[in-house]
Amino acid sequence: MAKTNAGRFFEDYHVGDVIKHAVPRTVSGGERALYHALYPARHALYSSDEFARASGLPKAPLDDLAAFHVVFGKTVPDVSLNAVANLGYAEGRWLKPVYEGDTLRSESEVIGVKQNSNGKSGVVYVRTRGLNQNGDVVMEYVRWVMVRKRDLDALAPETVIPDLNKVIPADQLVIPEGLDFTNYDFELAGEPHRWGDYEVGEVIDHVDGVTIEEAEHMIATRLWQNTAKVHFDNTARPDGTRLIYGGHVISMARTLSFNGLANAQMIVGLNGGAHANPCLSGDTIRAWTEVLDKAETSAPGVGAIRLRLVATKGGAPFELKGEDGKYLPDVLLDLDYWALMPL
Amino acid sequence: MAKTNAGRFFEDYHVGDVIKHAVPRTVSGGERALYHALYPARHALYSSDEFARASGLPKAPLDDLAAFHVVFGKTVPDVSLNAVANLGYAEGRWLKPVYEGDTLRSESEVIGVKQNSNGKSGVVYVRTRGLNQNGDVVMEYVRWVMVRKRDLDALAPETVIPDLNKVIPADQLVIPEGLDFTNYDFELAGEPHRWGDYEVGEVIDHVDGVTIEEAEHMIATRLWQNTAKVHFDNTARPDGTRLIYGGHVISMARTLSFNGLANAQMIVGLNGGAHANPCLSGDTIRAWTEVLDKAETSAPGVGAIRLRLVATKGGAPFELKGEDGKYLPDVLLDLDYWALMPL
Amino acid sequence: MAKTNAGRFFEDYHVGDVIKHAVPRTVSGGERALYHALYPARHALYSSDEFARASGLPKAPLDDLAAFHVVFGKTVPDVSLNAVANLGYAEGRWLKPVYEGDTLRSESEVIGVKQNSNGKSGVVYVRTRGLNQNGDVVMEYVRWVMVRKRDLDALAPETVIPDLNKVIPADQLVIPEGLDFTNYDFELAGEPHRWGDYEVGEVIDHVDGVTIEEAEHMIATRLWQNTAKVHFDNTARPDGTRLIYGGHVISMARTLSFNGLANAQMIVGLNGGAHANPCLSGDTIRAWTEVLDKAETSAPGVGAIRLRLVATKGGAPFELKGEDGKYLPDVLLDLDYWALMPL
Repeated sequence: MAKTNAGRFFEDYHVGDVIKHAVPRTVSGGERALYHALYPARHALYSSDEFARASGLPKAPLDDLAAFHVVFGKTVPDVSLNAVANLGYAEGRWLKPVYEGDTLRSESEVIGVKQNSNGKSGVVYVRTRGLNQNGDVVMEYVRWVMVRKRDLDALAPETVIPDLNKVIPADQLVIPEGLDFTNYDFELAGEPHRWGDYEVGEVIDHVDGVTIEEAEHMIATRLWQNTAKVHFDNTARPDGTRLIYGGHVISMARTLSFNGLANAQMIVGLNGGAHANPCLSGDTIRAWTEVLDKAETSAPGVGAIRLRLVATKGGAPFELKGEDGKYLPDVLLDLDYWALMPL
Repeated sequence: MAKTNAGRFFEDYHVGDVIKHAVPRTVSGGERALYHALYPARHALYSSDEFARASGLPKAPLDDLAAFHVVFGKTVPDVSLNAVANLGYAEGRWLKPVYEGDTLRSESEVIGVKQNSNGKSGVVYVRTRGLNQNGDVVMEYVRWVMVRKRDLDALAPETVIPDLNKVIPADQLVIPEGLDFTNYDFELAGEPHRWGDYEVGEVIDHVDGVTIEEAEHMIATRLWQNTAKVHFDNTARPDGTRLIYGGHVISMARTLSFNGLANAQMIVGLNGGAHANPCLSGDTIRAWTEVLDKAETSAPGVGAIRLRLVATKGGAPFELKGEDGKYLPDVLLDLDYWALMPL
Repeated sequence: MAKTNAGRFFEDYHVGDVIKHAVPRTVSGGERALYHALYPARHALYSSDEFARASGLPKAPLDDLAAFHVVFGKTVPDVSLNAVANLGYAEGRWLKPVYEGDTLRSESEVIGVKQNSNGKSGVVYVRTRGLNQNGDVVMEYVRWVMVRKRDLDALAPETVIPDLNKVIPADQLVIPEGLDFTNYDFELAGEPHRWGDYEVGEVIDHVDGVTIEEAEHMIATRLWQNTAKVHFDNTARPDGTRLIYGGHVISMARTLSFNGLANAQMIVGLNGGAHANPCLSGDTIRAWTEVLDKAETSAPGVGAIRLRLVATKGGAPFELKGEDGKYLPDVLLDLDYWALMPL
């Protein structure tokens, strides 16, 4: 049993440590096809090599969230195997599109630790980077999780809480090299609405719903080599349910948002996100979006739009929190991201 | 909500309109592998590059029905989102094999409209074409659906009912360039029966059955970017069931027909088809075939065979309709197609 | 019905016959991605082209067991359609890695027959070979099954029982050309334990569990073009259950064994195996391993390790058989294989 990975505990994390995560992954057309089979993914830039070329890219990249899942999955054995809760995300940026044939690996730098007052656990902040075979960083994000202590008598480390942007300033978003939406084909993309048609404060109900099955979320989560027991083993939780990977809900909500946001093509920034309530097999996921901000970019024909994406398993659209300031019980996800749209 | 697609209603279709459907799709080995994982697909020409090359093709094409599903899926948001029923198919022809790396898009021409006498809905006929990245038409078919009216007071359009072939004449079937079955390896293909061994009127029970799961039909239907709510959202129908995409039944029945028709390699014509009864998760699909006709072709070693493919969810093979002329309740599909076989 | 394959019966097998199995298969990145989506596969050599290149291979091969399943699946219509039981495996060797683009076919030589004393069935021994498009044998194994007789009055053939190695001698294992673990990156591979760290007799509990769903095992089994009815048709067995393909359990157990055996990279020999009890949907599969032997090899930095891999659906780890010498009811699989590890 000494041979198996018991995961890290709170006292194993030290600010400044860089953890090189295991199991690099080469992606192919297989991962792309599976993403499109597991989620109702229809953004044209990721579905068609021709559409991507007309937008200045060499071919259709792997969906941004698929790249995120690959990078994230590798961190699970080192970061969240003993996590009690996934507390938040910040400063997520996609820096380079991922293409078929690329090999991704991940590393995480510990940038903060804070022991909880109960002495039994603490919060760990890591900045994770996904790298390709050339050593280029393809994406990065900060994530913080609550982790159990192995030894309750271990001394509390000095508290370090990183100073994180609540929102990534638009001028720090990285636009993929060559991206050009001046000849954008709105008919092929599926909707006529351009950047100028969206107003800050506008809300959009994405209408469609998808009922989730055990087999699907497990196939998806395994594809990202995410090994957290609770997603796969129905004996791992007292009630016999398998908790659905939060990233599955993110991808489901994002792809459902095609209906109303077909032209919010590329995700370039993740400002924050909360998994408000657990998602289980049998839930029907729906999504709505609020336009939070808009910004110009330096790329031809390309605008940035900041969106709040909310996934629910019922309830009325556009309701988020109760009078007590807490998420309503049907809210699954509250995500704040930047996307690129044709002007 | 103004941003989302509410779909077209009966009065939105005008004879002569050409609808360019959204979201082109590049196919890869991923789509091929998924087709073979979702259906018991074993026709050698689609499973092996070597077998395809020995038959005069550059490599194994994407399965004909997978190409059909990709082309069809794109039409759903424009043609059948508000459809009450999918009434029929005609004049379907596969014109060019689809290979890994091809990018498909679809367009549909409205070729007929007829308001129903109740004034609440009407029948719309479209001729859909699938095109590849070079603008070549890879397949085409006519489909007619019953669509609701948005405004019950809208005037009825002039009735136009297209004149459609009940059966595609054999000389209008398009044989893929280079196809040559003179060196066909029956052992590798799986069965010894050649074109000459089948007689018109012969019936074949394909014996095997597959019990359908929710996860599988949703994965398949999403892969084709078919977004019809009823397939995915168990709150969309009053009884809480998810209606299985009719094309899923077509592919299941066709692949089950390998057992007895292993050499009916390529589908080149779709004469007609009816989804006789709904298919739901838990049904066990079986199939039987009746040989309807045979014809020679101009390609070396290649014969054409016209087949009625019937899918059922129970009942005895070879039973189709009751004394009232209606499909028996266990019949799911009645499909009439042309395939190519070695002489 | 004369057109469909009724399978072979005991009296159809004659020692010396070579059966060329149908439906060759070209594998792509799609099969690789699906393998990683259906099983928690994380061995780095199969996940990353870069890791494989650093180990002296041209790129990441298809997982060894995926290659096995493709080769095995083709034999089902000819070998096990009328089998009462899959009795054993021996002398399995992987001779050449399988890469994307390779086309596999299978053939089996009948090497033994023995009629059972009840006169109703008999045991058939076949040596199966998987070949690629160049005619190279990529793997081979012996398997024996109990098969029903068609005609109970058929005379018993002369009994021939092949002389099979209980264990493949280490010097008969074939190391892939160029394999070199001298620069092996243990951090990227996921665990620090090298060949020298494992002791004969050591046991490892792989800790994790996966609960199995119908959709998943059917998708997997179809991907290998395995057509045995009992896996797909819930009317095929009296109790309405679908029996899970034994190979699904093998792959699940092997991939679960990553946790503790991350560096047992390549499978090169299959000494024997028993499917101890049936596996059904809803079972949670766990695995444990016993180190049976170790051997040096001629390849730089590469050691061989012989492992007993046991899959269970419950019960305590390290328990295998009861006092009666029979497998405990929770034991699903007892597999004896050789793997390659960095020294």
